Parts: sequence; structure tokens; C-alpha cells
Amino acid sequence: MESARARLPIVYVDAVPVRVDGHGNVTEVGMLLRVAPDGSISRMVVSGRVLFGERVRDALLRHCEKDLGPVALPRIPVDPSPFTLVEYFPDPDRSGFYDPRQHAVSLAFVVPVDGDCQPTQQALDLAWFSPEEAVSPAVRQQMTSGHDRLIRLALAHVGQLP
Amino acid sequence: MESARARLPIVYVDAVPVRVDGHGNVTEVGMLLRVAPDGSISRMVVSGRVLFGERVRDALLRHCEKDLGPVALPRIPVDPSPFTLVEYFPDPDRSGFYDPRQHAVSLAFVVPVDGDCQPTQQALDLAWFSPEEAVSPAVRQQMTSGHDRLIRLALAHVGQLP
Amino acid sequence: MESARARLPIVYVDAVPVRVDGHGNVTEVGMLLRVAPDGSISRMVVSGRVLFGERVRDALLRHCEKDLGPVALPRIPVDPSPFTLVEYFPDPDRSGFYDPRQHAVSLAFVVPVDGDCQPTQQALDLAWFSPEEAVSPAVRQQMTSGHDRLIRLALAHVGQLP
Amino acid sequence: MESARARLPIVYVDAVPVRVDGHGNVTEVGMLLRVAPDGSISRMVVSGRVLFGERVRDALLRHCEKDLGPVALPRIPVDPSPFTLVEYFPDPDRSGFYDPRQHAVSLAFVVPVDGDCQPTQQALDLAWFSPEEAVSPAVRQQMTSGHDRLIRLALAHVGQLP
Repeated sequence: MESARARLPIVYVDAVPVRVDGHGNVTEVGMLLRVAPDGSISRMVVSGRVLFGERVRDALLRHCEKDLGPVALPRIPVDPSPFTLVEYFPDPDRSGFYDPRQHAVSLAFVVPVDGDCQPTQQALDLAWFSPEEAVSPAVRQQMTSGHDRLIRLALAHVGQLP
Repeated sequence: MESARARLPIVYVDAVPVRVDGHGNVTEVGMLLRVAPDGSISRMVVSGRVLFGERVRDALLRHCEKDLGPVALPRIPVDPSPFTLVEYFPDPDRSGFYDPRQHAVSLAFVVPVDGDCQPTQQALDLAWFSPEEAVSPAVRQQMTSGHDRLIRLALAHVGQLP
Repeated sequence: MESARARLPIVYVDAVPVRVDGHGNVTEVGMLLRVAPDGSISRMVVSGRVLFGERVRDALLRHCEKDLGPVALPRIPVDPSPFTLVEYFPDPDRSGFYDPRQHAVSLAFVVPVDGDCQPTQQALDLAWFSPEEAVSPAVRQQMTSGHDRLIRLALAHVGQLP
Repeated sequence: MESARARLPIVYVDAVPVRVDGHGNVTEVGMLLRVAPDGSISRMVVSGRVLFGERVRDALLRHCEKDLGPVALPRIPVDPSPFTLVEYFPDPDRSGFYDPRQHAVSLAFVVPVDGDCQPTQQALDLAWFSPEEAVSPAVRQQMTSGHDRLIRLALAHVGQLP
């Protein structure tokens, strides 16, 4: 894996968990508090690798369940295409999305979750923010690696960018 | 309304109801049997007008509830933009989508439904078809006005066109 | 038309003109200076009505040529679906997009233009802004009716929201 | 590379070259005749790997120029997200998209080309087909690996699936 990471872009998925009302309006965005690839403790979305032989939507479900717990009830989108691409590079200036470990091409999805979310494994915390809070300076300064920009792109995609 | 219909394009929504498995794969497409605008009895998707002062997603929810019943539990998409535009014209050759009553610009969405569907009001029946059945000649010949093509566009959008 | 406007949502198109480099990156956003529907002199995107019997993409081309001049060479997108919906209401608080004259459902597209743009007819001026300038407070305060938000949604769609 | 291919999904881009009229309507689809990964001589779209450190849209431009020649003048889309994902697997039944060499996650784009196309390198030929021809049995039987389905998905995306 280490040698592959030095030679090939790695396929990732990023999931922005959201709460949605009955009319399809996004009311809240979920963010994990965890150790980012750059070593900082940071607010982040669900993110992880697609395995050899794995379908992208199976990877999306697996990472949502791993990070949000087994009863989060994520609704995997019916559209297989991501709402945006997030290109992480070891050079922080290449695209604005930064991962010191690797070049990753991440397929980003907005994932409504209906159930109870219990952050598991490496996450310290999961908090929900209104669209206004999610793009506020107070929350943005808790994010690194370009994840604050990813949140804005996700909110724009759902028509809720303040 | 009659005089407006002769002078202005009318805003519509079309909803393609689908059953989805836990991984986001579309497993079935729902189609109503009803009297089409051209007078034929036809397999159709959910379709209707956006009212003055109404948000598009509220119209989408209203028509899904009206045509699929109050416990269909439609999941209105978080993305406000339609997956395609359906331009209905009184001239059947203009775009391939036909409505003898009007020029309608319809915003088309794929809408997963989780609950029990009970077709109400004008529909004679609601039946569910696998993607293969939905594009088969037997089902296509039950559709008029271009709705068979709309089904293929919807299945392509979700990556399930056979 | 006046009586229809009081009873029906009107179909509109909004076009965000952009300059693009050879790799598909948006480098500049074009904005007209014109009298907005609310009477203010405002920075705006190309916007106009779809006529009875007109295809949406023909309306998009017509308004681009009318507002940007005959040699702007707009590239109408191959995807018929808009990147977002802009729902203008006479009530400024309904959606954040405001038009005192009507309820309009506008299909919004990003339109690369290759040629020389010469603002025609009602526009006082056409200016080009980098993505950073386009979302700056100085430019945003020249925009009304929610057009500043539309610019941010367009830049997010093309991955260039700062 | 060989050992990575046995352990990791590889990032690919697929480009469906199209001719477009001034209104954004796709009039023709381009297909190369070349040796497919499965050894057959097959009609195919432009396809290739994203390199370590390379932006996705730079890879898209590079493969278009390599396969269509230096004066094809491809218009790389402004939207960074693909219109669909093509998941190629060594098992032909896994997704319907087949590559005996590897598991590839391919980002698929429709790319209008304005210039002269001269197929270079490994391609034997480049031919242009109307949407009707492109989905006809005669052309479909010249395609392997699921590329016939990719053409249908691309035509559906641009609203031109017959």
C-alpha cells in the first residue's frame, strides 16, 4: 500500500451527512471531530478508501456505517455520480484539498441520514450544524485540508449555501 | 388558465417513483395506469403542475402524495435540480414529448418511495417493474406521450439502464 | 401576460457567462450592469423568459445573444438539465430570490463564451471578474435579488468557489 | 504497476467525444476502433488512466489529445463531476463493465470536439455516428466491455437517447 500510494492516485469517497426535512430541504450538516491526515484535530466529513473489488456505493455505505454507527440509516443516493470531485494532493497548493499521505481522487456525495448517529472508532465526536453555522468562521477554523470548502460545495449543491 | 395555456409554457414536475435497496440501487420503477392527456389509457409517471407561489419541491411532494397515496413516504431529493428536462409540446414531433393541451416545461426527478403506495384519484392502477421489464417492448407499448423515453432517461441517470 | 403573471409561475432561464481556459477551468465570470426588476441598478447574470413553443436551449441561446451581443459565441451546454433552480418570488423572504413582478422558476446554466461580448439593449455595462472578485463584498453589494448567491452556486458547481 | 493493479482500484477517465450544433444539441458520437483490454477489436470511447499528481481534467485533455489528435479542440466540461461512474471489473458480471486487467473506477464525461480528429497511436479508425446509429444493433455488436451501455448512458444524459 505504501509503495502504491507513492505512485498512483487512490480512489476515495467523501460523504457529507445531512439531516433532511420531509420536503427534501437540508436542515443540518454532520461533522466528525477526528485526527486529520495532517495530524490536526479537525472537523471532517466521512471519508475513506474504496477497496479492490468493491463497488463505490458499497464503499460509501461501509464508511458511513463505520463512522456514524450501525443505526445511522444512511440513504445512499440513487445517482451513481458524485456531486463534485475532491482531488487531495500532498502539495497543499495543488487544488486546495490536502492529504500529506497521498494523491486521492475522492467522489463526494451528500448522504441524508435518518437514524441515530453514534460516532465510532477514531472519531472523538459528531456534531450537527445548521447551514449558517456550518459556513461560519467559528466552525470553518476548526476544519483543515479543504473540508470547509467541501462543506460549502455540498451546501451549494443542495441549494442551501447561505 | 385556458388562455394562459395558449400563450405561456407551464411549469410541471414529473416524478419517477422507484424502490431502492439499502445500497442505493434502484430495483423497481413504479408506473400509474391512467388516462393520458392525449385520451389514451397509458402507463405514466407522477406528473403535475407547479402552482403560483409554490416551491418546486413542495409541488413534487404534493403530486407524489396525491398520486401514490398518503403513506407512500416519498424521499424528495436534496438536489433541487432535475435530472432532465421534459419539454411537452402540442406538436408531437417537436421534442418527442407530447401534450395536446399545452406547452409544459417539466422538471423530472427520480423519487425513492419507502412506504405503501395506494394510487388515488384518477389512477386506475399502480404497478412496479424491474428495470428490464420497464424498458421491455411489452411495457413500452403501454406508454404514450414519450413517457417510455422518460423511463429510459431515468434508468440511465441511476446507472440501471439495461 | 399581466394576468398570467398573477396566476402562474413563469418559466425563465438564467445564464452565468464564464471565460474558460483550455483545461475547462473557469477563470472569469461575466456580469451585466442593468436595471433589476426591483428598480435598482444592479450587477446581474443573463436572464429572461422562455416563450410559448420555444425549446429551453433555444431560449438560452437567444438571451445570451441578446444580452452579450451577436459574436459572443456562447457554448450552450449539452446537458439539458440546469445546474440549479432559481425560484424567484414577489415575497423576498420566500426563497431568497426576489422578483416583484412575478413568481418565476428559472433554469440556471453556466455558459462558457469564447467570442467578444458587447452588451446590448438594456445593459449599461458588462464586466468580468475572477472567482475571488465575484464573491468579494465589493461586488456582492452591487447585486440584488439574490444574484450574488446565484454566482456562488455557479462557482461551487464548477468547483471554483473560493 | 502490475502489483498495484492486483490490489487497488485504478482511477480512469472515459470521454465520449461528440459533435454539437450551435444550440447545444449532440448530433454525432465519435467512436474509436481499437484493440480492447479483452483482446477484441472493438468500437470504444476515449479512455485512460489518471497519473500520480495529475488533475482529473488534465488527464481528460491528455487522453483526448492522444486519441483524437492535436487539433481535435476538445471542450473540457466546466463541471468537474462526471455524468456517470463506470466501474470496470475483471469479473464481467460484477457491474457489466469489464476489464480483465484491473478494477478501474472511471469518471465518464461527454466532451464536445470542434476541430479535426485524427486518431493517433493505437486506434485503427475513428468514426462518427448519429444518436440513432450509435445505439443500433449493427454498431452495438461492434462494442465490448460494456461500452455500448456507456454510449446509451451518455446519450441519455444529453437528452438524445432515441
